[in-house]
Amino acid sequence: MKHNFGAGPCILPQEVFQEASQAVIDFNNTGLSILEISHRSKEFEQVIQEAEALVRELMDVPSDYSVLFLQGGASQQFAMVPMNLLPEGRKAAYLDTGVWATKAAKEASKVGQVAIVASSSDKNYSYIPKEFSVPSDAAYFHYTSNNTIYGTEIFEKPNVDVPTIVDMSSDILSRVINIADFDLIYAGAQKNMGPAGVTLVIVKNDILGRTGRTLPAIFDYEAHAKAGSLYNTPPVFSIYVSMLNLRWLKEKGGISVIEQENIIKARTLYDEIERNPFFRGTANEQDRSRMNVTFVMDTPEQESAFLKLAQERGMVGIKGHRSVGGFRASIYNALGISSINALVDVMKEFEELSK
Amino acid sequence: MKHNFGAGPCILPQEVFQEASQAVIDFNNTGLSILEISHRSKEFEQVIQEAEALVRELMDVPSDYSVLFLQGGASQQFAMVPMNLLPEGRKAAYLDTGVWATKAAKEASKVGQVAIVASSSDKNYSYIPKEFSVPSDAAYFHYTSNNTIYGTEIFEKPNVDVPTIVDMSSDILSRVINIADFDLIYAGAQKNMGPAGVTLVIVKNDILGRTGRTLPAIFDYEAHAKAGSLYNTPPVFSIYVSMLNLRWLKEKGGISVIEQENIIKARTLYDEIERNPFFRGTANEQDRSRMNVTFVMDTPEQESAFLKLAQERGMVGIKGHRSVGGFRASIYNALGISSINALVDVMKEFEELSK
Repeated sequence: MKHNFGAGPCILPQEVFQEASQAVIDFNNTGLSILEISHRSKEFEQVIQEAEALVRELMDVPSDYSVLFLQGGASQQFAMVPMNLLPEGRKAAYLDTGVWATKAAKEASKVGQVAIVASSSDKNYSYIPKEFSVPSDAAYFHYTSNNTIYGTEIFEKPNVDVPTIVDMSSDILSRVINIADFDLIYAGAQKNMGPAGVTLVIVKNDILGRTGRTLPAIFDYEAHAKAGSLYNTPPVFSIYVSMLNLRWLKEKGGISVIEQENIIKARTLYDEIERNPFFRGTANEQDRSRMNVTFVMDTPEQESAFLKLAQERGMVGIKGHRSVGGFRASIYNALGISSINALVDVMKEFEELSK
Repeated sequence: MKHNFGAGPCILPQEVFQEASQAVIDFNNTGLSILEISHRSKEFEQVIQEAEALVRELMDVPSDYSVLFLQGGASQQFAMVPMNLLPEGRKAAYLDTGVWATKAAKEASKVGQVAIVASSSDKNYSYIPKEFSVPSDAAYFHYTSNNTIYGTEIFEKPNVDVPTIVDMSSDILSRVINIADFDLIYAGAQKNMGPAGVTLVIVKNDILGRTGRTLPAIFDYEAHAKAGSLYNTPPVFSIYVSMLNLRWLKEKGGISVIEQENIIKARTLYDEIERNPFFRGTANEQDRSRMNVTFVMDTPEQESAFLKLAQERGMVGIKGHRSVGGFRASIYNALGISSINALVDVMKEFEELSK
């Protein structure tokens, strides 16, 4: 048995894999593979409509927001956000909480003017800056709610007076949020929503079309919204699997239920990190992520030995990102508590063996 | 038994569906689904490297060209081509052979200056313009080699003296071409290469980086080339299935073998259209596509009756595009001659029943 702690693309529910596998052979008894059906067929239209309806239901999306399924990942959103929301001559405010937040700001600076309002780079992004202000004339404020590499997460929307854009790639669907707090939310699917190849965008309609920029249609949120995410051929299979995963989440009881599980999963693992003398967390305690748990050991030798033991016990993807080192256990929605317990058991086993 | 004549996303080989279905459960005996493995894992690196190597081998790609797997479809290439290749103040030349060619030019005109060198809109794009000249100071010349909607195809590269860009979305891998004739080739995967969600770009390295434009990295071919198509999380599953399909094509004997099959398939169908008094082709004879065979009947009543009969006989996706009407049989690489014969049989059956 494998326990997949990979940071993304990552584990999805086994039921989803089973159903997706079947659909690759015969989708809904059509006699056709999901890979060969037209994106204009009524069968696929039902899929994408159900996917959108599930996002709206699970996240309680107000009716004046569009729900889009786009290609290109969060990296493409780094460019599309300023292209759609940053007028020439205005400034956008970015909070720098690590590699992905830095990249979002850097890519935006190729489109327009960017101001970094705060950064935690002084301590290798191990904490979330709290004291900062966003200029009231900023076109928007952008932040990254969960920082996979450093294991930090922003649970409360910072108190700012300008339109707020959030990259929720790695914590979307993991906890209840109030959509109306945000003007645009984006998330690459490949953590909690589905496989790689599709990106969710939830955008308040009335912030669009105001920059005066001429955009190719493929980069224009309004063009996608008007076409119901069918402006061009969508990534059919990635949307289909996302829909299956959203169904699974609904059947589990929705986001408030999975949030409670995620709280317990994270606490179980952090508790062991605190208790076990061989491990210590790298993130500032009050900023600890529920999705990515980062921890280190005292010596490279211990880390090699623990990694080997963990791999022997079926753990996959727990090596930390090179910029933090040590270990990163990504514990997304689909990872069961049994896998958390298995990891805790290995940590205890390591402690015993080292006595 | 279904015969899938859909225009795209479209039929792929049954063996590919079988193997892809298995990989969704357990990929290469890793104990993990292809949908949950990291794009940085050595297993996926092998997949993308094999996909690139197969494209290079099958299409005989010179070493000074990059082979990229990108997201966003041909529609995104409509924008990326001028962003990467059209300097401010220069003009790009476009050949207008139908909806997709028109869109390519329109999207480019949002980025820079565009000149339409010729158009066949006067006869609903039923032919390919032959007499036109491209200004020698054009930054590049763009055309669409196969026009799915109208059933026309350009087999010979037009004789022009400027860098040539071709959208081969619907005839890539269907016939032998000389890559060195082109500076950039792009193709949405969802016809002859794989499922929707990935786009092949083959680009001559030395035409890149010359416009002086500042581009977000996600839109910069050079950034993708330097990163080996792993600048950001790629569409893992779409690339994997494309790789399987490229393997299948190699095992069949490669492009020259499939080209001969495609010639026979197209001729068989066109012969029946010419012979059978109930049908007539819509495309100019010398410009007929080998990938999309368009034909009409004399009355809407006949067309309804034939469509019904064909559907009863298992034909899927043969209704023509609304701008041409009638029927369109898309006969891509993976559609076997047995499906062509089945369609011809229905056409004969209709003739018999109508006597």
